[in-house]
Amino acid sequence: MPNPTHPPVDPAKLTAQLIRCASVTPTEGGALVLLQQLLEGAGFTCTRVDRGEVANLFARWGTKGHARSFGFNGHTDVVPVGDQAAWTVPPFGAVEKDGMLWGRGATDMKSGVAAFAAAAVDFVRNTPPDGAVILAITGDEEGDAVDGTVALLDWMQTEDEAMSACLVGEPTCPNHMGEMMKIGRRGSMTAWVTVTGVQGHSAYPHRAKNPLPAIARLMDRLSSHELDSGTDHFDPSTLAVVTIDTGNPATNVIPARSTATVNIRFNDAHSSTTLTDWLKAEADRVAADFGVEITMKIKVSGESFLTPPGALSDLVAKSVEAETGVTPVLSTSGGTSDARFVQHHCPVVEFGLVGKTMHQVDERVEVAQIHQLKAIYARILHDYFA
Amino acid sequence: MPNPTHPPVDPAKLTAQLIRCASVTPTEGGALVLLQQLLEGAGFTCTRVDRGEVANLFARWGTKGHARSFGFNGHTDVVPVGDQAAWTVPPFGAVEKDGMLWGRGATDMKSGVAAFAAAAVDFVRNTPPDGAVILAITGDEEGDAVDGTVALLDWMQTEDEAMSACLVGEPTCPNHMGEMMKIGRRGSMTAWVTVTGVQGHSAYPHRAKNPLPAIARLMDRLSSHELDSGTDHFDPSTLAVVTIDTGNPATNVIPARSTATVNIRFNDAHSSTTLTDWLKAEADRVAADFGVEITMKIKVSGESFLTPPGALSDLVAKSVEAETGVTPVLSTSGGTSDARFVQHHCPVVEFGLVGKTMHQVDERVEVAQIHQLKAIYARILHDYFA
Repeated sequence: MPNPTHPPVDPAKLTAQLIRCASVTPTEGGALVLLQQLLEGAGFTCTRVDRGEVANLFARWGTKGHARSFGFNGHTDVVPVGDQAAWTVPPFGAVEKDGMLWGRGATDMKSGVAAFAAAAVDFVRNTPPDGAVILAITGDEEGDAVDGTVALLDWMQTEDEAMSACLVGEPTCPNHMGEMMKIGRRGSMTAWVTVTGVQGHSAYPHRAKNPLPAIARLMDRLSSHELDSGTDHFDPSTLAVVTIDTGNPATNVIPARSTATVNIRFNDAHSSTTLTDWLKAEADRVAADFGVEITMKIKVSGESFLTPPGALSDLVAKSVEAETGVTPVLSTSGGTSDARFVQHHCPVVEFGLVGKTMHQVDERVEVAQIHQLKAIYARILHDYFA
Repeated sequence: MPNPTHPPVDPAKLTAQLIRCASVTPTEGGALVLLQQLLEGAGFTCTRVDRGEVANLFARWGTKGHARSFGFNGHTDVVPVGDQAAWTVPPFGAVEKDGMLWGRGATDMKSGVAAFAAAAVDFVRNTPPDGAVILAITGDEEGDAVDGTVALLDWMQTEDEAMSACLVGEPTCPNHMGEMMKIGRRGSMTAWVTVTGVQGHSAYPHRAKNPLPAIARLMDRLSSHELDSGTDHFDPSTLAVVTIDTGNPATNVIPARSTATVNIRFNDAHSSTTLTDWLKAEADRVAADFGVEITMKIKVSGESFLTPPGALSDLVAKSVEAETGVTPVLSTSGGTSDARFVQHHCPVVEFGLVGKTMHQVDERVEVAQIHQLKAIYARILHDYFA
């Protein structure tokens, strides 16, 4: 039942407006200001939650702390344009041609933000729910992500603002609209390993303590170990040795030190703690076997997480199916997303359009997909509060 | 029975004169000119055998092609002075103090050349033998050694000049005069290994072909393999991985390529050919196991060689023992020397004084050791022709 005072928000036009805001991380670029204006016009209470040089926007329609508070999470910041000369359109021009909308952020993820903002505005205007609709939009997802969604969630906790369920609008479909949603992500961690021995002459290896046989053994052991064979909802965890370096140009010298870096993508059979323990045990064993010293610096980019298939994933899958005729696969593949932060607060899934051209030159999106995505998000809201 | 016309040649004075010739490879510096003058004065036939920018001196007393032709081999070139400011004496000053003679080349090996030249001159003057005494002295031992002793030996072969036995006068004693002589040397070779796979994203290792597990496995296999447990006259062969390098700074990227370098010092249980075959077989096996490409560049610096203990080593050992009271160990330790070239032509052993300060700042030699060395060489000549 269209509201005559307020015609439906056109998510493609909103995407184009957002693309014209040159919001390369951490620049706000006018994107959040634009959204705030739109949302406040529909009765959302908006708060800018800026931290450091990052701008973030929290918007709520309805009662604070309501048990049915459906949230959307997304970002308006974009990656740099890269080789500007290689673009066939102005990267921030939002040109529409061949049924596509072109520009940086077209898929990742100004279309997603526009689609859920448009759906939310129409929804609260036309069928005001018994509950709350929350939009937590950040300007720092493509950067370090320390002052972005994390800042929003921190602030919400302080303010007793909470979501009972959350949908992250990142592009999730590899090739065709509707084919994939995400119910979790693998964790990611990196270990920088340094093996220290004693320098010496190649002709007298017994007088030196060569770190290289030790680092070779350790990397062989780590990379030939099967971490797991996959779990119910995850592919097998993987470990990649990404570099081994020594920098010794002299063939008659045994070097004192060598370094290696290992990157692990892990599923819910592990945590960064259990993996750190394993790495250290392996290093200790090799250090003892070879009489060298092995130190390790570890950085955890994110733990693995899973929102087990259930009410939320059913709701999203059903809506996708209804609008596209496609049943989405429940996946946990890919890199990381801000869902890794949200999962500490409420059930979270991810669904968005086809992400093929994200981060590329000539990033673009099918205009029809933006409308489809808005319809899916609208149906999710409708069914959630039904 | 001293010759009144010709007093004995003082080997310490001759060493000092040679030190004052700044003969850093490949500069002749007057050293060979000086020796030629001395030797011609004693009836030696001298020929300069220069090749490229290198000067070499061949000197023979007695009949060409005689079945008893005892040869000495050595070099007058020296390594650079290094940090000149760190020297406490002028590097080419040949200062004598505290019973030591100081200067570049004092131990390596102007004292050795002076000692055998002095011994040879006195010997042919005082007790002219039935046979020939040969001195093959090069100006390129410390450099690439391609235009040095090799050039002398090539020329000798062309001219039908031959030694029936040869003593190389390099410093051979680690700490005390007389304690060690060398009857052979280990071989040395280097392999540069490149492992090539397919670059990719760390999160999707199955789509890439990581060269690092392969290079780790190969280096582990090579370095943990026992080449041998030593032979009658040699220590065990050794293999040292001296560097592994990749140069990939990105933790989310699997690199396409990694390289490693392996240095092998091998005894007479191997040759560079058998070792090359082994290295290639190991590389092929790992390449097949990991589906990567492994290529190898090999450089052989020298094959191992041995002059089995016998008449020549007995002669030298007996002379050392008579003059010093010390029985020399028959060793095959250390790096390489020009004996590796001589061994293709005649039995060769090495004996010289204590080499502790060779190549160092403030290189110096005990004056008494030079005299002792001359006495040892003189006794060797005497006994050889007795």
